[in-house]
Amino acid sequence: MKDFQFYAPTEVVFGRESEEQVATLVKKYGGSRVLVHYGGQSAKRSGLLDKVCRLLDEGSVPHVELGGVVPNPRLSKVNEGIQLCRLHGIDFILAVGGGSVIDSAKAIAYGVPYEGDVWDFYAGRAQAQTCLPVAAILTIPAAGSEMSEASVITNEDGDVKLGYSNNISRPKFAIMNPCRTFTLPPCQTAAGVTDIMMHTMERYFNPDGDMTLTDAVAEALMRTMRTCVFAVLKNPEDYRNRAQIMWAGSLAHNDVTGNRSNGDWATHQIEHELSGLFDVTHGAGLAAIWPSWARYVYQENVSRFVRFAVNVLDVENDFTDPEATALRGIEAMEQFYHAIGMPTNIPELIGRKATDGEIQEMVRKCSRNHQITQGRFKVLHPADLEAIYRMANGEIMNNS
Amino acid sequence: MKDFQFYAPTEVVFGRESEEQVATLVKKYGGSRVLVHYGGQSAKRSGLLDKVCRLLDEGSVPHVELGGVVPNPRLSKVNEGIQLCRLHGIDFILAVGGGSVIDSAKAIAYGVPYEGDVWDFYAGRAQAQTCLPVAAILTIPAAGSEMSEASVITNEDGDVKLGYSNNISRPKFAIMNPCRTFTLPPCQTAAGVTDIMMHTMERYFNPDGDMTLTDAVAEALMRTMRTCVFAVLKNPEDYRNRAQIMWAGSLAHNDVTGNRSNGDWATHQIEHELSGLFDVTHGAGLAAIWPSWARYVYQENVSRFVRFAVNVLDVENDFTDPEATALRGIEAMEQFYHAIGMPTNIPELIGRKATDGEIQEMVRKCSRNHQITQGRFKVLHPADLEAIYRMANGEIMNNS
Repeated sequence: MKDFQFYAPTEVVFGRESEEQVATLVKKYGGSRVLVHYGGQSAKRSGLLDKVCRLLDEGSVPHVELGGVVPNPRLSKVNEGIQLCRLHGIDFILAVGGGSVIDSAKAIAYGVPYEGDVWDFYAGRAQAQTCLPVAAILTIPAAGSEMSEASVITNEDGDVKLGYSNNISRPKFAIMNPCRTFTLPPCQTAAGVTDIMMHTMERYFNPDGDMTLTDAVAEALMRTMRTCVFAVLKNPEDYRNRAQIMWAGSLAHNDVTGNRSNGDWATHQIEHELSGLFDVTHGAGLAAIWPSWARYVYQENVSRFVRFAVNVLDVENDFTDPEATALRGIEAMEQFYHAIGMPTNIPELIGRKATDGEIQEMVRKCSRNHQITQGRFKVLHPADLEAIYRMANGEIMNNS
Repeated sequence: MKDFQFYAPTEVVFGRESEEQVATLVKKYGGSRVLVHYGGQSAKRSGLLDKVCRLLDEGSVPHVELGGVVPNPRLSKVNEGIQLCRLHGIDFILAVGGGSVIDSAKAIAYGVPYEGDVWDFYAGRAQAQTCLPVAAILTIPAAGSEMSEASVITNEDGDVKLGYSNNISRPKFAIMNPCRTFTLPPCQTAAGVTDIMMHTMERYFNPDGDMTLTDAVAEALMRTMRTCVFAVLKNPEDYRNRAQIMWAGSLAHNDVTGNRSNGDWATHQIEHELSGLFDVTHGAGLAAIWPSWARYVYQENVSRFVRFAVNVLDVENDFTDPEATALRGIEAMEQFYHAIGMPTNIPELIGRKATDGEIQEMVRKCSRNHQITQGRFKVLHPADLEAIYRMANGEIMNNS
């Protein structure tokens, strides 16, 4: 069994009126001048942004606002945030939004005290020694960034999407009010649940496979999501099920369902190039890739795919034919994706097949110019990555 | 659904050589003069204590030692520790042991900077505003104190056993090496697993009952413990299963399986008087009480006991007779306790029936002189507490 570290220091305040505590929490964690970072118009429309600013005013916490973070958040916005923080002497960054906003907030937090280019961290050229404290008011359960050490930023210069992980950026607190997710459109709800389940699946499909308790917890989370998502797609204001999804988003990425560094992460890496190139929703991109990844790799450990099929997807176990059971699990996952409106391949994701040139570009970026492999469940070389992209593109059916 | 706070900031370092990091971790969390706090001779015999002291020496971390913590840790030892810390200018407390040692360390940590009597906190007369940092090298998986905010101390003056919870005492780090649990005797292993499962059951049997995800995670943990305990009772050096139990001990009490304050806790409170009076192992005391508690309260929410029976104990669901299924679950739990060598009532626990006077004394203490109730699943008044003690004593069979 592999050794692990577990570190999830974020104080979670979960419930209907949790925002009310924002000023108290900012001050508790040392904030005296706050950047309120947010995305598009929904935070404004919903009244959440105004409420947060009012609460900070009432708590005598000076703040400036910076909105406009887009999905697949951009480095240019990060640099704008860094300059703004330096100009105003900001010492605390409060992200109001989903994973993109929180990821952008983390990048700003690294950048403010750093003399060089913040992209150095994402490009692997430097390690952040310090950062401003970050906190989150979550509005989209999906990325798990509200408790995680990870952030992913897209550098428009070359459309390069890279992640950087450092424990120092784990949010100090996360305010989670499920009511704030009532207005999420169905596609975003479904993509969020896909991302949540995938954070667990990336950990679950690992080559070590002997952390019984963690596997059982992971299965519990995935089974629960399978049920809850239909409840909220039917009734968007179902508080109880919205709450399960919101909390699952945090547990799926705070390492309770498995240690991040022991996981596979190939599907995430393969998807990053899809959303980097086509600017699609990350969760939808994951659904478009996973079935092809799964069919390409399942023979590495058939019994793990059987366990997934039986324990997560309620597939009947054909004890005489484990391979058939494993494949039925992958089919069941595709049926689930379709049932919640997610794609299961690239044409369904972008409305056409990817061109040969686009596939070559994604392979090149995902393998960092053919220099690195991806994945741990099965180590994927550039030729493997290309095969998976082509399977997902409907060009080849499987790896046999 | 009830609102909750989740806060589990402890850095867990889990694995075969995890102790090696002790000096680095102490310094990372600001320790410069350390009290090494431990229990009986086993920490010395195993060589762990010497190793820890050597590692601190090599890391140039001055330290003094204080051993002699006993199960159901005593206030006198806490006060001895407080004086010792003040004498030596200690600024960090490192507990090497199980729950009793860590609980004692937390009490010392509260007491050092406090001008009054540290018992004030446990007696509910004051709230701690500050405490020394605490950390743990865990050797007994059971209490979950290594990540929790709780500690329980026995005041010999009147044999009063009381708990105090405060987030400021959550350990800064917890070093967990499953190999250190290989030498635990079977009874301590079984009592530990009983305690771990009970920390989850106290949360699982709550009157709110709509946190689907948390319930599923709790069931996953309890099912896993049911299997792992037999593996390690058969082969004490089974690393993989020792590891599951060790990690479960932390997850069962760090609120991943349910928010502490929403739980029931009546079995724990009723047991505290047993171990306070008879100085028995806490885990064994819990097993001796729970079946009587369960039979006394199950009619409050039969469906929850059915769910427990089916999802945790693999009892076949008699859909036509939920009550019968619920009761079969309680019987299955008793069979499990017996199978791992635990008692299921007071005579099995202490070798005789409790006297009428002893029962009256326990009822009096547990109800704080008939002033308070216990439990949330069913609110228990002093007469209810007495009935449960008498059921566990074999005097009455059930509450009907």
